[in-house]
Amino acid sequence: MSENETKYDDLKAVFINCSIKKDKSQSHTQLLMDRAADIMRKQGVSVEDVYVLDHRVAFGMVKDRADEGQDDEWPQIQQKIMDADILVIGSPIWLGTKSSVATLVIERMYAYSGDHNDKDQYLYYGKTGGCIITGNEDGIKHCAMDILYALGHIGYTIPPQADAGWIGEAGPGPSYGDTEWDGKQLDVPMGYDNDFTNRNTTFMAWNLMHTARMLKDNGGIPAVGNTSSGWKHVTNAQSDNPEYR
Amino acid sequence: MSENETKYDDLKAVFINCSIKKDKSQSHTQLLMDRAADIMRKQGVSVEDVYVLDHRVAFGMVKDRADEGQDDEWPQIQQKIMDADILVIGSPIWLGTKSSVATLVIERMYAYSGDHNDKDQYLYYGKTGGCIITGNEDGIKHCAMDILYALGHIGYTIPPQADAGWIGEAGPGPSYGDTEWDGKQLDVPMGYDNDFTNRNTTFMAWNLMHTARMLKDNGGIPAVGNTSSGWKHVTNAQSDNPEYR
Amino acid sequence: MSENETKYDDLKAVFINCSIKKDKSQSHTQLLMDRAADIMRKQGVSVEDVYVLDHRVAFGMVKDRADEGQDDEWPQIQQKIMDADILVIGSPIWLGTKSSVATLVIERMYAYSGDHNDKDQYLYYGKTGGCIITGNEDGIKHCAMDILYALGHIGYTIPPQADAGWIGEAGPGPSYGDTEWDGKQLDVPMGYDNDFTNRNTTFMAWNLMHTARMLKDNGGIPAVGNTSSGWKHVTNAQSDNPEYR
Amino acid sequence: MSENETKYDDLKAVFINCSIKKDKSQSHTQLLMDRAADIMRKQGVSVEDVYVLDHRVAFGMVKDRADEGQDDEWPQIQQKIMDADILVIGSPIWLGTKSSVATLVIERMYAYSGDHNDKDQYLYYGKTGGCIITGNEDGIKHCAMDILYALGHIGYTIPPQADAGWIGEAGPGPSYGDTEWDGKQLDVPMGYDNDFTNRNTTFMAWNLMHTARMLKDNGGIPAVGNTSSGWKHVTNAQSDNPEYR
Repeated sequence: MSENETKYDDLKAVFINCSIKKDKSQSHTQLLMDRAADIMRKQGVSVEDVYVLDHRVAFGMVKDRADEGQDDEWPQIQQKIMDADILVIGSPIWLGTKSSVATLVIERMYAYSGDHNDKDQYLYYGKTGGCIITGNEDGIKHCAMDILYALGHIGYTIPPQADAGWIGEAGPGPSYGDTEWDGKQLDVPMGYDNDFTNRNTTFMAWNLMHTARMLKDNGGIPAVGNTSSGWKHVTNAQSDNPEYR
Repeated sequence: MSENETKYDDLKAVFINCSIKKDKSQSHTQLLMDRAADIMRKQGVSVEDVYVLDHRVAFGMVKDRADEGQDDEWPQIQQKIMDADILVIGSPIWLGTKSSVATLVIERMYAYSGDHNDKDQYLYYGKTGGCIITGNEDGIKHCAMDILYALGHIGYTIPPQADAGWIGEAGPGPSYGDTEWDGKQLDVPMGYDNDFTNRNTTFMAWNLMHTARMLKDNGGIPAVGNTSSGWKHVTNAQSDNPEYR
Repeated sequence: MSENETKYDDLKAVFINCSIKKDKSQSHTQLLMDRAADIMRKQGVSVEDVYVLDHRVAFGMVKDRADEGQDDEWPQIQQKIMDADILVIGSPIWLGTKSSVATLVIERMYAYSGDHNDKDQYLYYGKTGGCIITGNEDGIKHCAMDILYALGHIGYTIPPQADAGWIGEAGPGPSYGDTEWDGKQLDVPMGYDNDFTNRNTTFMAWNLMHTARMLKDNGGIPAVGNTSSGWKHVTNAQSDNPEYR
Repeated sequence: MSENETKYDDLKAVFINCSIKKDKSQSHTQLLMDRAADIMRKQGVSVEDVYVLDHRVAFGMVKDRADEGQDDEWPQIQQKIMDADILVIGSPIWLGTKSSVATLVIERMYAYSGDHNDKDQYLYYGKTGGCIITGNEDGIKHCAMDILYALGHIGYTIPPQADAGWIGEAGPGPSYGDTEWDGKQLDVPMGYDNDFTNRNTTFMAWNLMHTARMLKDNGGIPAVGNTSSGWKHVTNAQSDNPEYR
């Protein structure tokens, strides 16, 4: 199968960078996110980038804090998430876990989980998600399991190998994309020639496109057995409890 | 949309119970797994049950310990996993984490991750997975994120809301399906009337069927950008690194 | 042994509530934190409360963002942490994990981890920490393992059973301390009569006092084998590597 | 303070290696565990090693499966744990989590958690624990938080920086202690010259000795506010609930 047979140019993706650095240009995570975004762009996917700390995002299990007069640009970010078929969350690793900003983003997305799409499914059904994690120490899989679980829990379909990342050997050291360390120039920016990272990033980008294509062509996930109002009217776990009939 | 339009009777599922109890009849997790399995059976899915501790399964990152003269029935379980479109792992919660048996099952599945399907993708591509977790205390989401991440990492597609479970209020208490506690009869077996558990179990069962249906009709995940031998020949993260060209 | 023999009135504790609610009076976590704080107060411990969202705290692996002209009240909170022998972090559970605010607090504490105390140990050596977690669903242990690990990693000693929490049965329901649910009055505020929660909260409070007492009387952790400058001059893992001598 | 002033030669430690390799001589984790054990031995601590897979250990939340006629050598391992002041659990990382054998060990220790010491505290009070994690990819902190939380939950005191480990750069590669990789000899066994790993291993070993010393000299944790029978008779969280009096 050639890669050219399938079209992806009707798909939209949003890449949300949850770095805790004020200045996007300092984010190592962004460098790896760009690799994945560029793969999608080359296949015609419309990719939008969000750097969360460029925005004022309020805390809370709320849709819009502006209702209470507080500064809150979340609703604009939420709109981009709703417009996109694909979501990629990028997070640095601090103390082995995803960043505070990534946690904030997930909380705000979760605040909409009572809403439904036009099939009466949870809002994020029919979309697909992945994540990119970088750090210089330890924790790609731990951060990824946390983020991917959250996305799945609110309605995203998670493709195979939907995470990619880079970390260095245990201990302090250069970060992804660094071109010097300890006063010495590096021949290749750190991690750029790591086959494992490049392969996983490629797998993730393509699997997100394949899954988004499949979901879109399928009209999303069929609305049987997974709607708030309808699940009791099809074969279900309650009616099926013999002792409970 | 009626649930009758789509056929599921060509699908196969395997439910693997990773309880640490010697005797399957004592497993509370089995009771909730049965709810999900019955939903699938009623739609015509062929469902196979495996109770791991009914088998001798060796430890190790190996495909078959029998090669070394040790008792090992894993290969028969692995065959059932390979035959199935859908995998559901059931685990009790102990000290907040998935069971030793669940960890063992994932290790053994992982030991085959170097193998490929006939499209040169990881072996588990094209399959879909979920999990059922029970305990009387705390930890559904933690166990689920761990198990679902592992399945995704080795090639499974994870549908929306692919986990379900039951726990009671913080502290010791009856387990799922118990009919008495502290000397008193319970009107309804514990948890059987929990709408949240019944709903999530129903959502999981149906979303696994929908996703398996979609993947099967699609011929699995297209083999572009996600094969060991092929990823460097399509748009990828390595070629895309400008500094590394 | 009577509880009166030992004095705790020279000890200081700080309780940091990482709720994501704007208004402290709405925080269920606060209600359980107050139980633990009151036990300490009755033994003479000086307890300080911090409600993080009453303050402007900047993101970033920085000690003080005010250096860059940004609003940042973290240094005042950091001062309270440094003054205290005991730290208790309170967090709600959202989607099974600790809150964004708890993550932010840990990041900011971590930003000081390059600093040392007057024995050349990490800054937080000699202190002891615990956590209080509430939610209505699932995740006490997962949040606790994350928070307690972080505290230990930066230098805190973690007593036995240093976490306590309350969650309800799987699914939506009343939160800790709620006095009504679904239009009905509850006889006892939710969870207040949960023996497990009360016991664990008591154990945590006392074990933090015992450990703080022990550490204070001991002059902290002896500075042998755990200082940045000194570890290579005592028996250590490097010199001990036969192949590396 | 000189390291010679304090004696540690009345202390006992047990190092439990939870590798999933049948053959102890193939365990990379053992090599790093030996570094920590040797530091303790040189200070006079009696150190016992257990390689779990050299023993038949049954599954289950049971103290002794031999009661049911099954092969079970756990009680002998449990005896060593009870005899020791210090416990170090070693685990490899597989798919980002601790091993099945480590999970099994924790389950079996947990099965004794209803027992009490002679002060009516949980059995493991007065002991201290840490962990050693190795892998070639990712997950030290995730495994450590899981293991250390479990130990704390059942009664261990966790010293500052009670974990140490080694992993390589993201992706497959040599494991700790490997002397060749990809056909090439390594000048130094892999990771042996990693300052971060050596430092953390040293910190862990010393902090365990300091904490064990302190706990032993203190007669364990004082039995106030942390006993099953006694917590309601001292200042506690139940009596302290004003609405519940």
